[in-house]
Amino acid sequence: MAVVVDLEEERERKAPSLDALAALVADDMARVNEAIVARMHSPVPLIPQLAGHIVAAGGKRLRPMLTLAAARLCGHAGQRHIPLAACVEFIHTATLLHDDVVDESALRRGLASANAVWGNKASVLVGDFLFSRAFELMVEDGSIRILAILSHASSVIAEGEVLQLATANDTTTGEDAYLDVVRAKTAALFAAASRIGAVIGERPKAEEEALESYGLNLGIAFQLIDDVLDYSARQEKLGKAIGNDFQEGKITLPVILAFRRGDDDEREFWRRTLERLEQAADGSDLRRALDLLERHRCLADAVRRARHYGEIAKDALGIFADSPLKAALLGCVDFSIERAY
Amino acid sequence: MAVVVDLEEERERKAPSLDALAALVADDMARVNEAIVARMHSPVPLIPQLAGHIVAAGGKRLRPMLTLAAARLCGHAGQRHIPLAACVEFIHTATLLHDDVVDESALRRGLASANAVWGNKASVLVGDFLFSRAFELMVEDGSIRILAILSHASSVIAEGEVLQLATANDTTTGEDAYLDVVRAKTAALFAAASRIGAVIGERPKAEEEALESYGLNLGIAFQLIDDVLDYSARQEKLGKAIGNDFQEGKITLPVILAFRRGDDDEREFWRRTLERLEQAADGSDLRRALDLLERHRCLADAVRRARHYGEIAKDALGIFADSPLKAALLGCVDFSIERAY
Repeated sequence: MAVVVDLEEERERKAPSLDALAALVADDMARVNEAIVARMHSPVPLIPQLAGHIVAAGGKRLRPMLTLAAARLCGHAGQRHIPLAACVEFIHTATLLHDDVVDESALRRGLASANAVWGNKASVLVGDFLFSRAFELMVEDGSIRILAILSHASSVIAEGEVLQLATANDTTTGEDAYLDVVRAKTAALFAAASRIGAVIGERPKAEEEALESYGLNLGIAFQLIDDVLDYSARQEKLGKAIGNDFQEGKITLPVILAFRRGDDDEREFWRRTLERLEQAADGSDLRRALDLLERHRCLADAVRRARHYGEIAKDALGIFADSPLKAALLGCVDFSIERAY
Repeated sequence: MAVVVDLEEERERKAPSLDALAALVADDMARVNEAIVARMHSPVPLIPQLAGHIVAAGGKRLRPMLTLAAARLCGHAGQRHIPLAACVEFIHTATLLHDDVVDESALRRGLASANAVWGNKASVLVGDFLFSRAFELMVEDGSIRILAILSHASSVIAEGEVLQLATANDTTTGEDAYLDVVRAKTAALFAAASRIGAVIGERPKAEEEALESYGLNLGIAFQLIDDVLDYSARQEKLGKAIGNDFQEGKITLPVILAFRRGDDDEREFWRRTLERLEQAADGSDLRRALDLLERHRCLADAVRRARHYGEIAKDALGIFADSPLKAALLGCVDFSIERAY
């Protein structure tokens, strides 16, 4: 038994993690958190209450971390990246608030979602507030280029969300259409968060584009793995909820592959469960879904697809000189993918 | 009978209207409408469909009209005011979409509301899209000052909406607290829409501030009268729906006055109908509300309050030389108030 435990520990030690990146930007991130708290303040108490709830729920702060790391990688010695990283997190938080309303989610990262506690109305409006506040932060920074990058990303995110709504519960959605949604709703903000680091660092366009490509492809890989995790046996063993996407009839890459690789009987199964949302209350449909995903190697192949985008992200950083920061950004790609196991 | 009709016609002829202002900016407004259609385009068809529905429902386009008129009043000879007026209308439309979700409205300007046709989800997301697109338009214009004015106004609007939510169905809301909501949720955008006209015209700060004051006070007067119209016997005679605010338990100036001027029995009536929303299905409670508003002269006094703000708005324009445009802006104030009759 002792050997098994050691092997498991060995595995954990070697598993890619965000620790290196988080450590390198820890001081900056502490100041980003201060800026977030300071700038979500409002004389209307409900705003810091509700916004504080979702910001405190935390998560990895991956997007602002990208802005911090990219700015440092590009040699920025000042402080502009702090409020701009907060601004990226505000945009992300605003979209989370609106997403939870749209998805009618009761939970967010294991806690009651803001809409479950304060209602949809407050979530819509506080989301609007955070979004406006993000633009105020950008205006204070004063760079029209950064305003252009982030306002465009915001439009693209909203377009992606609407597109996702239009393709929801539609099993005819293909892999390319799905990737369009992922690029827009998730990867666009990763890309913008990374790119503005180069703008802050006043680096040449090639470096801006390299960081944008890094963020975009990292974001795609990240979302693909998120979608895999929702069907992951290992997640279930770790006590995490799985099957949310299935329950909502979300069309993600694993089921897109299963639908295409299945026979008529299986396709009818997917249509019944994901389009008509007729699902057995005893969980037997989720079991069958997991079985089909396994049989057709859909999860493994979705991870392979994610790895493809991860490789592009890593190659994009090739023009930067080696440094601990660059290594940590490369490690972030590995973490985003290998967390699937 | 003929005499009565003539008097009525006479009255209509003399009644203040928006016609003069609309005529002076008609060419510009046609181009604003083109810009609106062009810039709400998206490869995701639901976006122009839904946005087109609410934009086509039209309304008076008062806010972009203010930007156009203010820019011309300030001598702007170029075209910058066209996309910026479209941007103001986008911000307004985004807030309407989110308002209708928050208020669960089924109707908007007599037509089915967007949320009633396409659902709350699409309304939230298309609102986000229009809001982002508004910022993209500002970024294209390139003025950090205008970005600062409109991003701040957007934050204030969202704060005002949250504040309104917090005070909803609360009969202890006082006149000052109510005015804070009105200033934020309505007047801030009127103020910003007017002020940016002076920024576009590159006029001195005093003129910026004069136009901001004009817009702010016009906006307050406009909202106060909107609230009066919801209880107006004349509106009812014209076949327009009244009593929506009553039904939703909205605390507006007329009922704030009635609550303070009433006796214990009347206050209990307002608490029952507006706080607990226990209202007779036969409309008898609305009748009693109208009766109480009449008995305590609440509507007449709310109009008097509106007139006070209207006077401030008109005086603010005193520093501008007389011109047909200035006269039309003054007429806009009169229209906003006298439409109560």
